[in-house]
Amino acid sequence: MNNYLIAFEEFLKENLKHENPKNLYNPVKYILESGGKRLRPLITIKLTDILLNNFNKALPAAASLEVFHNFTLAHDDIMDNAKMRRGKETMNSKWNNNTAILSGDVMLILAYELLNNYEGSVFKELNKQLTKSSRLVCEGQQSDMDFSTQKLISEKDYFEMIKNKTAELIACSFLFSGIISNSTEINKNLLYEIGLNLGIAFQLEDDYLDCFGDEIKFGKKIGGDILEKKKTLMFINTNENLDNTSKKDFEKIFYSDFIDEEEKIKTIKSFYVKSGSDEYLKNQVKLYYEKSINLINQLELDDLKKNEIISFSKILLNRQI
Amino acid sequence: MNNYLIAFEEFLKENLKHENPKNLYNPVKYILESGGKRLRPLITIKLTDILLNNFNKALPAAASLEVFHNFTLAHDDIMDNAKMRRGKETMNSKWNNNTAILSGDVMLILAYELLNNYEGSVFKELNKQLTKSSRLVCEGQQSDMDFSTQKLISEKDYFEMIKNKTAELIACSFLFSGIISNSTEINKNLLYEIGLNLGIAFQLEDDYLDCFGDEIKFGKKIGGDILEKKKTLMFINTNENLDNTSKKDFEKIFYSDFIDEEEKIKTIKSFYVKSGSDEYLKNQVKLYYEKSINLINQLELDDLKKNEIISFSKILLNRQI
Repeated sequence: MNNYLIAFEEFLKENLKHENPKNLYNPVKYILESGGKRLRPLITIKLTDILLNNFNKALPAAASLEVFHNFTLAHDDIMDNAKMRRGKETMNSKWNNNTAILSGDVMLILAYELLNNYEGSVFKELNKQLTKSSRLVCEGQQSDMDFSTQKLISEKDYFEMIKNKTAELIACSFLFSGIISNSTEINKNLLYEIGLNLGIAFQLEDDYLDCFGDEIKFGKKIGGDILEKKKTLMFINTNENLDNTSKKDFEKIFYSDFIDEEEKIKTIKSFYVKSGSDEYLKNQVKLYYEKSINLINQLELDDLKKNEIISFSKILLNRQI
Repeated sequence: MNNYLIAFEEFLKENLKHENPKNLYNPVKYILESGGKRLRPLITIKLTDILLNNFNKALPAAASLEVFHNFTLAHDDIMDNAKMRRGKETMNSKWNNNTAILSGDVMLILAYELLNNYEGSVFKELNKQLTKSSRLVCEGQQSDMDFSTQKLISEKDYFEMIKNKTAELIACSFLFSGIISNSTEINKNLLYEIGLNLGIAFQLEDDYLDCFGDEIKFGKKIGGDILEKKKTLMFINTNENLDNTSKKDFEKIFYSDFIDEEEKIKTIKSFYVKSGSDEYLKNQVKLYYEKSINLINQLELDDLKKNEIISFSKILLNRQI
């Protein structure tokens, strides 16, 4: 995995060549050099290496995905008024909202610029897919914002939201490798679906770990979603399963701003456990993960390559990246 | 011109087909239906009609330009904290900044989506050009923001800023017609340069009218740039031409917030006239316009078509659109 990362970082550095105006491009360099797991580029690079026995052709598309992803972070951080990310100041905090808007905008454009490295039908397919996926990511972000003011959210709507906001770009990362490798239509469709299901599993796993994970391993404060009143699947499921009296207690605590933080996290978690929502969530992670493994097995590839993709997917879900 | 507009509005309406989430797409519909002169699409449509004797093929590219242009307006209005545009509330005022950020983002993506209507090399050329132009527009916007905190701006920097912020998208509108019509490389380069020079002439003409125009004909309050302390070419030129004592007086008044608005406009205008900057500006408009006419005459086209393009350019500059 390390070889991929070294090649990727080198490519990214060499291909962020625009410099002026400095107030536009310095924030772009700052956010792109501020770390992150490079999950999306690694997916495209690793899969292309499996499919094509060579990953160089994947580098521009991988960089496009990472630049696009960081554009969404820059704009999300304005909308959330977030001050810190990856242990560093956000763009809007280090500079200001206007800078984060415009430097974010130019990153979306740079994501397209990186695809100019491709030709013919590969160029067109990558381009159309980036357009489709980025539109869906915006739709997911809007739904997520809408949820914060809605009292009742259905499970169906929740899954639709995380599918668009998170899983779509993972699906795009899988599909990009298929496009670059000139895979069959069947394999390209399967790669997209594998990414979509794995992406949903990632997000649900993230929601679980945010509540029940190990603070050091998870790298973020446990209970953050609860304090932000995030309506995760556990919130929705708990609300559905509680009787009317308990539901009232649950909601009162969930929406309160006047309870000690640690006390609030502990109580909400106990509601999640009591209603069985923690187990329900773990089960959903397993279901979506198994769906993706099932789809990997349907790929028109030899067993060796399929097993490589299965091992890689397992590593991804277990957050060993 | 009216036929073009009718066809364009119909195409735009039929091709803005995304509807949900409503909070994402309603603001997009709102800004696109709030008027505007449709200058950029009209250029691409009219030029394609001249080059190809048919303008239908130009409609998606024309719509892409208009959607892109409105994305820049939506984000500029947040950055300027503007409340009104085209006599209607801005997106950030009618909704809020977060809505204007995200609905703006999706418009940039929709500008690319509209180009999916093309195939092969036309698709690739349009796409690459949209990417290049939109990057330069962002760079121009950043320079414009940088100017507001800089005391000294050179004429060279000013021309570079308006070239990127305004003229680049006009150049792109001209070039799009060449790409769609499969014009020769020579003609495509000329079309781009014609648009660039005309675009600079438009912006300078706009700066002149903002100060010395007829309020009813211009459609905006005269002196707006002065009240916003915009460092236009007349400001830069006046500053260069005044002796040290007059310069101090000029700057004191220009930057003051404590002078009656009408008084301030009158005094600054008298400085512009005294220094000859108004005539200098008018002369620059003429120079850039003549450059573009000279370039039109170099096009590899018959004289009839060249004259049609010259008449059209004259109409554009005289704001009969």
